[in-house]
Amino acid sequence: MTKYLVFGHKNPDTDAISAAIAMSYFLEKSGEEAEPVALGSVNDETAFALKKFNCEAPRVVSQVSQEVNHVALVDHNEPQQSVEDLGQVQVDYVVDHHRIQGFETAQPLYYRAEPIGCTSTILYKLFKEHDFDIPQAIAGLMLSAIISDTLLFKSPTSTHQDKDAAVELAKIADVNLEEYGLELLKSGTNLDSKSEADIVNGDAKNFTMAGRNVRVSQVNVVGFDDILTRKDAVLTQMKTDMDAYNYDLSLLVITDILESTSLGLVQGKDAEFIEKAFAGQISDQAISLPGVVSRKKQVVPQLTQAFEQ
Amino acid sequence: MTKYLVFGHKNPDTDAISAAIAMSYFLEKSGEEAEPVALGSVNDETAFALKKFNCEAPRVVSQVSQEVNHVALVDHNEPQQSVEDLGQVQVDYVVDHHRIQGFETAQPLYYRAEPIGCTSTILYKLFKEHDFDIPQAIAGLMLSAIISDTLLFKSPTSTHQDKDAAVELAKIADVNLEEYGLELLKSGTNLDSKSEADIVNGDAKNFTMAGRNVRVSQVNVVGFDDILTRKDAVLTQMKTDMDAYNYDLSLLVITDILESTSLGLVQGKDAEFIEKAFAGQISDQAISLPGVVSRKKQVVPQLTQAFEQ
Repeated sequence: MTKYLVFGHKNPDTDAISAAIAMSYFLEKSGEEAEPVALGSVNDETAFALKKFNCEAPRVVSQVSQEVNHVALVDHNEPQQSVEDLGQVQVDYVVDHHRIQGFETAQPLYYRAEPIGCTSTILYKLFKEHDFDIPQAIAGLMLSAIISDTLLFKSPTSTHQDKDAAVELAKIADVNLEEYGLELLKSGTNLDSKSEADIVNGDAKNFTMAGRNVRVSQVNVVGFDDILTRKDAVLTQMKTDMDAYNYDLSLLVITDILESTSLGLVQGKDAEFIEKAFAGQISDQAISLPGVVSRKKQVVPQLTQAFEQ
Repeated sequence: MTKYLVFGHKNPDTDAISAAIAMSYFLEKSGEEAEPVALGSVNDETAFALKKFNCEAPRVVSQVSQEVNHVALVDHNEPQQSVEDLGQVQVDYVVDHHRIQGFETAQPLYYRAEPIGCTSTILYKLFKEHDFDIPQAIAGLMLSAIISDTLLFKSPTSTHQDKDAAVELAKIADVNLEEYGLELLKSGTNLDSKSEADIVNGDAKNFTMAGRNVRVSQVNVVGFDDILTRKDAVLTQMKTDMDAYNYDLSLLVITDILESTSLGLVQGKDAEFIEKAFAGQISDQAISLPGVVSRKKQVVPQLTQAFEQ
C-alpha cells in the first residue's frame, strides 16, 4: 500500500499542524496509509491546543523522499513554503485555502482549494461529504485551527462557512467556542518566552514578488508595549536573516488580536514598496497598519501589486 | 453582480463544452451570473450530443477581458490551453481533472480537481453536494462528456466514480447508456467530413516538455483504413502547423475506439523521444501504440518522462 506523509507549510501554525493531523486521519479512513508530519516545531498556540486535546505534536522532518514516494499537502502549495525535496515525490492530494503559485505536477491529482478562512474548514466539509465521524480530539484541533486562522472570526478572510464549521466542531470537541477561542489566541501572544528569532521566524513565509525575495512574518500580541521595548533587537534579527537568506525585503506584521490592528517593522532596500502598498509612511523602520490582521488578504496582495505596478 | 464567463480548453471536446454549460448552470444556481463560452467551434461528436439534447453550442470567443474581469475554467488549467488574455482576468473557479502546470493566481480561489475520467463527473458530485437538481438536457451533456472522455469506460482514466455518475445521469437524461454511448462515439469518427486540418487540430493540445514545444493531437476512428489512405496529406498538414507555430514535435494519436488501440503519426526533429517513450519503432513516420487510448494517461506522462530523462 502507498504510504502518504501529510504536512503543512514550513514554520507551521495551528492550521498547518491540525490540518495535517485531520487530513492524515481522513486518508486512513479512505483506506490509505498516512502519517502527519511537520516542517518545524509547533508554536506556543499550537502546543496549547495539542495539550488541551491530549494530542502529540507530529514528528518534524525536513526531507520526505527517503521515506515515501507520495505526499499530501495541506494549508500550502507554493514550493518554497514546502519540504525541500518536494520535487522528488509525487503530490497526490492538496487541501488548501491560498493562491496557487509555482505549484506543478506531472500527473492528475486531487486538489481542493476554497477561498475561505481555514484549511480545516474545507476538511470539515470533506468529512461531512464522506459521512466520516470526526473524533473529539481531531475536532478540537480543527476548531483551534479555525479560531487561529480567523482570529475568532474577526479576520476579513473569515466566512460563514468557517463560523458554521467552528460551531459544529466546538460541539464535538465539547468546548465553549468564545471562551476557548480567547484562551487559545492569548496562549500565542506571550512574548516573554520568545527569542527575537522566535518572534521573527515563528510564523514567516517567503514570497516571490516581481522577482524579489520577500519575507512576510506575523506575530500576535495583546498590546504593542512589550514588543516595542525589544524593537531594536527584533530589527537586528530581521537584518541577520535577510543577509543569511538573501531576502530583498522583510516585513514583520505585529497584530494586536484584541484591537484587530497591526504595526509593521521593516528591513530591506525595497521599503518604499511597503509605503506604496499601505499608503502610509515608514518612520524609524515602523509603519502603522490600521485594521490589518490578515497577511493573506491585507498584506500579500497589496504588496504584490505595489511591486508589479 | 460579478459576471463569469465559463470555458473549457482550446479545441474543445465534448467535456470542455458540456462542463462549461454545466458549471455555468451551477454558478447561476449558486447565485452568480454566468455564461458558458467556447474557445473554438464544436466537433462532430459534441454537435451530435448538443442536437440530441436540444442545446445550443456556446458562443465562440478568443478573448474575454473586454467583457468580464472574472472567469471560471473547466477541463483545463494550463495557460497555453486557455484563452489568450487569461492573464488579464481573475480566475475564481477551476474544475478540472488534469495535472497542474503553469497555473498561478494572485488570490485564493476555488479549485477542484480529482484524478478521475471526466470533469463532468466532478461537476456531478458538486451538484449532489449542493443538493441542486440537474436539468435533463444538462444531464445528457454531462453524460456525453463522460462517455467521450472514458471511451465508454474503456479508457484507463475511467474510474468507478465516472461509471456511477454516468448511470445516474443516463437516468435523468432518459437514454440507454450503452446504446447512446456507442452512437455518440461513432458520431465523432467519420473522417469523410473532416479536412486534414480538422483531423490534426480538432482535438490537439500543446505541452511544454523539457523546454520543447510539443503538440499532441488525437482523433477517434473505427478502423485505420480511411486515415491511412490520407496519411501523406495528414503528415503534410502536421508539418505546415509545425512550421507556422514552431512546434518541436507533433504527434497525432489515431485511436480505434472499438478495438481500444492506437496508431501514431509523427513529425519533428525530436522523434527519437517518441520511440523511447513507447519502446517502439517509427517506420515511415508511423508508430504502433498498442492498447493506447488515453492521451493524458498513456501518452503525455510517458513522453514527458522520455524528454526529461
